[in-house]
Amino acid sequence: MTSVLLLFSGGLDSSTLLAKLIADKKRVHPVFMGYGQKHSRAEQAAALRVAGRYGVTGNISYIDLPVLKDSGSALIDPTNEMPHRTYEELQMEIGPSPTYVPFRNGIFLSYATALALMNHIDEVSLAVHASDYSNWAYPDCSPEFIGPMSSAVYIGTYLKVRVTAPFLHMTKSEIVKLGTDLKVPYELTWSCYTGGIKPCRECPTCVERAHAFEENGLVDPLLVD
Amino acid sequence: MTSVLLLFSGGLDSSTLLAKLIADKKRVHPVFMGYGQKHSRAEQAAALRVAGRYGVTGNISYIDLPVLKDSGSALIDPTNEMPHRTYEELQMEIGPSPTYVPFRNGIFLSYATALALMNHIDEVSLAVHASDYSNWAYPDCSPEFIGPMSSAVYIGTYLKVRVTAPFLHMTKSEIVKLGTDLKVPYELTWSCYTGGIKPCRECPTCVERAHAFEENGLVDPLLVD
Repeated sequence: MTSVLLLFSGGLDSSTLLAKLIADKKRVHPVFMGYGQKHSRAEQAAALRVAGRYGVTGNISYIDLPVLKDSGSALIDPTNEMPHRTYEELQMEIGPSPTYVPFRNGIFLSYATALALMNHIDEVSLAVHASDYSNWAYPDCSPEFIGPMSSAVYIGTYLKVRVTAPFLHMTKSEIVKLGTDLKVPYELTWSCYTGGIKPCRECPTCVERAHAFEENGLVDPLLVD
Repeated sequence: MTSVLLLFSGGLDSSTLLAKLIADKKRVHPVFMGYGQKHSRAEQAAALRVAGRYGVTGNISYIDLPVLKDSGSALIDPTNEMPHRTYEELQMEIGPSPTYVPFRNGIFLSYATALALMNHIDEVSLAVHASDYSNWAYPDCSPEFIGPMSSAVYIGTYLKVRVTAPFLHMTKSEIVKLGTDLKVPYELTWSCYTGGIKPCRECPTCVERAHAFEENGLVDPLLVD
């Protein structure tokens, strides 16, 4: 049985990947990364809810990454206001997304790789997808990043750990379609970058998430009053 | 003026690289990584001595990486005794070196890349060299690792941060030759993996270091009583 260390935030993408890995008969060890994100509490609660539904709560690891807390990203810094725009609009106006966190997936994958090697886990998996990099918002989600990073991980661990990114060439809409087929409990997940009680409906990820459900003729269960 | 974030342990290799970068008119910001290594205190003291000699003490950052403390490496785990063998002997007898730390340079480089990006530093530099990977002791020091890792860093930072490894194709003996020409104060450095007052003369890095001086017709100043 293949074992997988899954970068897991309790959001739509990584919850769908959790469902897929379990459907594929993998043994899953979710890892939640805390890096000072404004929505950390909401994310952690969602991660626990979703992991509980899939019976893998006991496997969750939590890792704290203090270095990113000073990064000034809009995801972290209270003085950097969350943009109320789509990724496309953000890109056209101001270049790199203000929600970019410096080399976040490089740090996440490196840490996860060390953990995987220490615990004899075969793969590190993450739910990056085509919508993440379509506007170059997150370069550390792109095939151009994942490719060489996977090679570095494989070589740097004596060919023992592989990186897998099964959604790398899927859009968020296609992820929602797959997840709906797999009956992912989207009502338990959390995506919004703000730390509120209900999704703000205005931050880039709220807009993108609502759109992905709409494209499938569905309504996001989190937006049903 | 190019600015460089240098992975700096106060050892022979990274002290020589510090000297070279300064000779090359770079602005250097050394970063010391603490990961539970047995020789942490000796390394930190050496790092401060060498940085002081080069006038860059004020630029040093310290980063703590608790995840590696449970790795069981002979560099960290008190129950895992330090081998008294050369890397060549270790490789022939027991495969991967017991002094390997899981994906250490992947974590070091990822963290350093985030710090470089946050502080508008152009390059991340490290002193890996040909003797590190000649017996496949440290795969995360090899060209096969550094190549793709450099690509991942460059892509994942919007092409803003580059990895440089100027000693990648030099042996430790060649590094000592360069450092001697540059008048590196090797008497201030520390390499031994054990945390003693004097080098143990028996661990793999002590043996390798002594040999590198011998090949240049020199005696390691740390071994002069």
